[in-house]
Amino acid sequence: MADDFKFYTELIVRYEETDAMSVVYYGKYFVYFEVARTEYLKNIGYNYVNIERDGFYFVVAESNCKYFSPARYDDDLKIFAKIEYIKNSSFNFLYNIVKVEKGENKNGNSKGPDVNIAKGNTVLVCVDNVDFRPRRIPDYLRRAIQNFEGF
Amino acid sequence: MADDFKFYTELIVRYEETDAMSVVYYGKYFVYFEVARTEYLKNIGYNYVNIERDGFYFVVAESNCKYFSPARYDDDLKIFAKIEYIKNSSFNFLYNIVKVEKGENKNGNSKGPDVNIAKGNTVLVCVDNVDFRPRRIPDYLRRAIQNFEGF
Amino acid sequence: MADDFKFYTELIVRYEETDAMSVVYYGKYFVYFEVARTEYLKNIGYNYVNIERDGFYFVVAESNCKYFSPARYDDDLKIFAKIEYIKNSSFNFLYNIVKVEKGENKNGNSKGPDVNIAKGNTVLVCVDNVDFRPRRIPDYLRRAIQNFEGF
Amino acid sequence: MADDFKFYTELIVRYEETDAMSVVYYGKYFVYFEVARTEYLKNIGYNYVNIERDGFYFVVAESNCKYFSPARYDDDLKIFAKIEYIKNSSFNFLYNIVKVEKGENKNGNSKGPDVNIAKGNTVLVCVDNVDFRPRRIPDYLRRAIQNFEGF
Repeated sequence: MADDFKFYTELIVRYEETDAMSVVYYGKYFVYFEVARTEYLKNIGYNYVNIERDGFYFVVAESNCKYFSPARYDDDLKIFAKIEYIKNSSFNFLYNIVKVEKGENKNGNSKGPDVNIAKGNTVLVCVDNVDFRPRRIPDYLRRAIQNFEGF
Repeated sequence: MADDFKFYTELIVRYEETDAMSVVYYGKYFVYFEVARTEYLKNIGYNYVNIERDGFYFVVAESNCKYFSPARYDDDLKIFAKIEYIKNSSFNFLYNIVKVEKGENKNGNSKGPDVNIAKGNTVLVCVDNVDFRPRRIPDYLRRAIQNFEGF
Repeated sequence: MADDFKFYTELIVRYEETDAMSVVYYGKYFVYFEVARTEYLKNIGYNYVNIERDGFYFVVAESNCKYFSPARYDDDLKIFAKIEYIKNSSFNFLYNIVKVEKGENKNGNSKGPDVNIAKGNTVLVCVDNVDFRPRRIPDYLRRAIQNFEGF
Repeated sequence: MADDFKFYTELIVRYEETDAMSVVYYGKYFVYFEVARTEYLKNIGYNYVNIERDGFYFVVAESNCKYFSPARYDDDLKIFAKIEYIKNSSFNFLYNIVKVEKGENKNGNSKGPDVNIAKGNTVLVCVDNVDFRPRRIPDYLRRAIQNFEGF
């Protein structure tokens, strides 16, 4: 399902994230995307806290999500993330959210295949954190992304 | 800027909706879209509360947003909304968010033109509120939308 | 019910604010308290945006809430707010949230009495917005509060 | 600092949880409390999902929080939780949130002591999930809590 993703992070749906339909509110998936971005950057060696200290912000220029099946309270979710391309000042994150079936069957195998919940992307722009004007993505980060993704 | 929209609702940015960049968190615009949907339906005579009582949910199948300029705490925002098309069980909402410049200049005119903040859309699907299976959008609502939008 | 409050602001419950019990999530009432604080300060002539520009933050030192009856999606709420006391660098906001019964009966009177939803308070501390150390509340604001509340 | 707590869960502060002061929004700590409640119940063998399936809701009757030091984006937090008492239909959760200092010093010890962030409590009431009327807390859960807490 998410074969070409080299990274994922996991989280458990909080009650606060559900709505009166008893499913995760559609806007909360963008929070899950953010969690995956943070952990993806840590995974390749960079902490966004430090990127901000270096004078940058990564602002979202565009975000999109398609919803396949509702997630619910206490579901175990995997958020797959990858960077699809990197330009001078912008880059595109792809995400794939799946629900992990809990427990095991009698043979010790997991109860079933993961369920597709949502997928989406966010285009991020590297900007100066004073005036919000586009800046070239720092080379150390560019190289780390290219090394990790292999492009 | 939003000439072809026949409806808008207004809101003031809450401190809770800002993040550590001192701007509105990118996922919160989807909450603003939801507020506009609610008020749009009321405006054409229907309350979503009653639609749920009739056995339906409107679930989001797809959501998209482009960000032009950051909104900040206490900004006055107008959320323009329109329904672009209506199919058997789905329909598409378009949104345009602008910031209203506060105050007036010496001549009693407003200080400047509205600022484009974000625009987006959500594809909604009418489903049965028990099993989440698609259902035909109720005819009373279909007619009210067509009358209002003129298609 | 809220006779000794001289100020209130109104809002409509958003779908995002509900949870899987179909009621407003308990933590969201603190957001409603924040909305009331913002509007209270505007009402006595001061905008918190400008207070931050003057170098201050009002940080919350303590918050408390008691819940009487659940609010639900699309409920019309009144958030009453008052400042109970003001010390050198801290002050205490009291809140009372009631649900307004919609519509009118045959005699043109409202359908029923307001329903008590929640009440609470927040102790705020005026701090320097660089190092978060307590600072004396600006005298112009202190006087405006004392004038409004009559103490 | 939290010696008499037998349980804690950990989380990392999300960007969404910060506000324009660059610190965690005061209302988000109640979400952290909720996460701790969920994990506490799992830890003693019960999943709140199943408690709801048995026909109950645990609704919050009262919530309180005191704030000592601000948490920030990407901070590692421990949320200690314990049940202080259990009555017929209500029980009281206590929480203690501390920030874990990241990294190690030259001697391989952690960089410093944990920092007190906030502490609070929530009084929960077991209610029927149809009419929200108080119900006796199920005995299996009562015993599990008493066994775990030792009262």
